Formats: sequence, C-alpha cells, structure tokens
Amino acid sequence: MPATTGHTIHGDHHHHGWDNALAPALTVAPGSTIEFECLDASGGQLTAASTVADVAVMDFGKVNPVTGPVFIDGAEPGDAVKIAIESFAPSGFGWTANIPGFGLLADQFPDPALHLWSYDKISLAPAAFSSHACVPLKPFAGTIGLALAEPGLHSVVPPRRVGGNLDIRDLSAGVTLYLPVEVAGGLFSVGDTHAAQGDGEICGTAIESPMSVTLTLDLVKDAGLASPRFTTPGPVTRHLDAAGYDVTTGVGPDLMTGAREAVARMIDLLTATRGMTPVDAYMLCSVCGDLRISEIVDVPNWVVSFYFPRVVFN
Amino acid sequence: MPATTGHTIHGDHHHHGWDNALAPALTVAPGSTIEFECLDASGGQLTAASTVADVAVMDFGKVNPVTGPVFIDGAEPGDAVKIAIESFAPSGFGWTANIPGFGLLADQFPDPALHLWSYDKISLAPAAFSSHACVPLKPFAGTIGLALAEPGLHSVVPPRRVGGNLDIRDLSAGVTLYLPVEVAGGLFSVGDTHAAQGDGEICGTAIESPMSVTLTLDLVKDAGLASPRFTTPGPVTRHLDAAGYDVTTGVGPDLMTGAREAVARMIDLLTATRGMTPVDAYMLCSVCGDLRISEIVDVPNWVVSFYFPRVVFN
Repeated sequence: MPATTGHTIHGDHHHHGWDNALAPALTVAPGSTIEFECLDASGGQLTAASTVADVAVMDFGKVNPVTGPVFIDGAEPGDAVKIAIESFAPSGFGWTANIPGFGLLADQFPDPALHLWSYDKISLAPAAFSSHACVPLKPFAGTIGLALAEPGLHSVVPPRRVGGNLDIRDLSAGVTLYLPVEVAGGLFSVGDTHAAQGDGEICGTAIESPMSVTLTLDLVKDAGLASPRFTTPGPVTRHLDAAGYDVTTGVGPDLMTGAREAVARMIDLLTATRGMTPVDAYMLCSVCGDLRISEIVDVPNWVVSFYFPRVVFN
Repeated sequence: MPATTGHTIHGDHHHHGWDNALAPALTVAPGSTIEFECLDASGGQLTAASTVADVAVMDFGKVNPVTGPVFIDGAEPGDAVKIAIESFAPSGFGWTANIPGFGLLADQFPDPALHLWSYDKISLAPAAFSSHACVPLKPFAGTIGLALAEPGLHSVVPPRRVGGNLDIRDLSAGVTLYLPVEVAGGLFSVGDTHAAQGDGEICGTAIESPMSVTLTLDLVKDAGLASPRFTTPGPVTRHLDAAGYDVTTGVGPDLMTGAREAVARMIDLLTATRGMTPVDAYMLCSVCGDLRISEIVDVPNWVVSFYFPRVVFN
C-alpha cells in the first residue's frame, strides 16, 4: 500500500543544475513522504506531437529539470539521506531520441532520431516499439540527488558522489537509496523519470516520460557514506529475463572500448536478424539491453558484455 | 537429457597457453559431442589438503591448463565454431584464493588467502563459505576458446577475440556460444572450470573446481563474427536474485576506477555489517557479486555498480 503523502511539489518548482544556494521549495522533518511531479528530460519540449525535427532544435539549457529542492530538517554534512522509493504514477507518454553528439556511439550515429511511445499507465503492459518489439516497463527516476558542497551552479548532466543523474535502472519502487549529505538540509531534488531503461542507457536516452514520484525522505546521522548505495527488495531483471538473452562481447584492455564494441556488435546482430535500421536497434538497446562487466582481472584484457533480452520479441 | 558423447578427452591431454602449432588431441566431424575432463586452474597444485602457504608457492607456469585441442574438420578462418554447452559433472571440491599481485584490488590485498569449498556434486546445493554465507552454484568453464592466427605460444591469462579466458559466468549448461575461427580446424580447448562466479571475478579467482564438461562442436560457415557471442536459453541470475541485492556504486570519469570503488565500498559494507574480514569479503564478492555498468553516457561521469545478492545470507 502506498505511503500517504503529506506534501506535493508541483512541476513548476523545478530547477536546472545543482546549486546549494537555491531556496528550498519545501522544508520537511525526517520521515516525511512527498509526492514530486516530475517533468520529462526535455522539460516539455518533446510531446506526442513532436517529430525528429524537434530533436534537432531542442534547447539544451532546458533539459533535465529536477523538482525540488527539499530541505530536510537536521541534515548535516556527513549524514546520509535515506530515500524510500514508494511509487510512481507514470503519464503514459514517452520518447526516446538519438541526440547528435550524445550517447555511447555518438560518432556512429550523427543524425537525430526520435521514437514516441504510448503505454498503458495503469497496467504498465510492455510498450510497442513500432512493429519490432514490446519493451517491459519498470519506472524509475534517472536523476535523484543532493546539492554539492562546492558553491555555484553545477551541470545536471554528470552524476556525482551525492547522486544526481545516476540513471540506475534498478532505482524502482520498493528500493531504499542512501545519498551522502554535503550541505545543511541536503537539498534533495528528483526528475528525469523513465518508464524503462537498460543498464548503461547506451544511446543517452531511455523511455523518457513525465510522471509523479512518491518518496519518503529520512536521515541516517554520521553515515560515513562515500557514494550512493541502495538495497533492492527482490529481483531486478525478472521483467526482462524470461526468454533469455542474446549476448555480444567486447574483449580488450579498455572497458570503454569494450563496451562500445559489445554494443556495436549487438546493433549489427539486430539489424541482420530482425530487419531493423541501425538507429532503431541502437534506441531499442538503450531502453532494454544491459551492459555488464563479465571479467575485469585477466590482465591485460577485460570482457564487457551486452545482454539483449529476447522477451521483447515474443 | 544430456547428449551422448562419442569422445572423451582425458585431463592429461592438456596444454598451457594457446599455440596453433599444437598437435590436436582429437579430430572430429562438425556436430560431434565430446566430454572434456578439465583440471582446476591450479593444475592440481591446490587440493582439499592445501593451506594458504601453498598459494604463496604456486608454480604459475602450470596454471590454467586447458584440455584439447580439438581439430574440427572443415573449420576455416572466417567460420565460427558453434558450441552447445550440454552439461557439467562437477567434482565437489573447489578453492578460492587471493593470489598476490592478481585481482581488481591487488594493491589493497597484498597477502595470499585461501578458502576451500566442499559441495554436493549431485544436488549442487548452495556451498558454505565458513559460517558467513551459502553461495548458489552454477558451473561453467572460465576458459573456452580457439587458437589464434598469430604463430607462437600465447599466454592463457588474457581472453581474446577468439575466446579463451573469458570468465563469463553465464556460459553455463544450455547456452550456445559462437567463437571466430582463425586457423584450420579451429583448435578448440576448454578448462578453468568454476562451480560459481560473480560477473567480474573481482578477486581473480572463482570457485575453482575440476570437472568434466560435455560440449557439442559445430560449424557456421562464413560467420563474419568479430568476437564471442552467445545465447542463453532463459534467465541468468535467478539462482542469486530472490532476496534482492545490496548495491554500491563508483561514480566518475573512468570505468576501471569506478569498478574498483564500487567493489571496495561493498567490502567495507560487508565487513561493517557481517563481521567478515576484508579478504573474506573480497573472496565472497568474487564468487557471487556482479559488476554492472549502470550508466555510460552522462559525460563526463559514468556509474559502475556492484550487486551483492543477499540470498547468500539467508
């Protein structure tokens, strides 16, 4: 049963980037449950009426708005904010784009591309990707974090030790997340909500989807936490794994090169066997395929594997 | 039902390293099923009577023997060997070691350590790690590969585009693996059998365990394969995922550093909460915990996550 929220922060209380001088949108006692209305990562620039032309002219000054910040009474540097991820209320609309210059294979995919998704926001049944595939959904917030100790405005794009744009696919309902506090009150914000994503978010976007998120924010005093940590209540890949995986590999002395090779080989496989265009395969991989490090000790070559779940073709 | 083998290659037909001038131990037609007796990665130097002193004096010239090679009639450069991984017959004995100078955190763990495992080779029930944990088993061959085109002897330690010491945990029974052929006959060998391992094999060893492996070797002509690829018949982590995961992260611009930080933080967590020594936590993480790349696009910082399955403490 969802927690009862005592507070709602509406989507107009959003900000771009992290700045510990921002005025709180809300101040709460530890243990408070809050509903956050989150915009999509385009900040509303992409809608169900958008075309690929809209990707090319997006204003990047408006991307990845986060809702907040919330000042948590008593939070001090050295503490951790304990976040119980209660529930998501997805909107039913989503988009996935290839944005030129962004993504693991940006050099190979220079042109903009856009896929619009429509999904059942109640059943969360797998969502159709054209006629090619149906992708299981598992909503989460891509960006979830606290303000940094360093003053000034910091880009929202990179994640940091205090969290932020972590894009960790498994931060879904039921998870408990811990983030290290660096400023009084913590200054918590959340956004960049996704209806589904694979580990890696390889094309740079997921199923980007506006939705409300309900969280309970609590404190652990003197936690001594160095970076985000979380606990999942149960399995994390059962929505994807039932039909097994096709797996490609990249073998060599650099993990980034290995990841790029593993993904490129999966795109080759999908285009050869499923009749998809390369950019469609790239976007599909981003929303459901997983990057794993199979081996990181057999000097000098490591193995990065890309796991594509065959259930999306069933 | 297991395939009926037409051939057995005994463990004395092993070699150290890859060399395309090695005489085949066996020549077979495509489609042949073969039983391989595989030694453990120490080549029998570590036994159920071993102590940590034996790790310190191991002869590294004898590590990672592989059984073979098998010449597959008709295999030519440009083809792929298609390997149906039929079954494993584990021995019931295993070892996990911290070998000085080897492993993801070799700088932090300079001293040798050894854990001996005894498991039920029929039931494959989870195996006890002292009083701390019981680790679910899933046998596979860590080293599985073909000879390289380049002449001479090549170390068995690093995996390469033709396979070898891949240490991919999911190459278990039921999987179909494809490897690129570079020399006539392919010259297939297998060894380094593991009763269990986590993704990454972070301390450098798994549950190292002698066992027999039954494989069917077939050919795909003109496959155009650039590196190993495989297909799993179903889920890959259900032996580990039922009780959920504790997850630590490393956030920053280098995947290797991120992996090291994520693992070090998990070791800190396990020592703080489970009363284990750091080196025990390190070895336990190696046999059951998974390295995943959560995010690889949010420039300039990536997120590597280490997933520890709580089921081992149930």
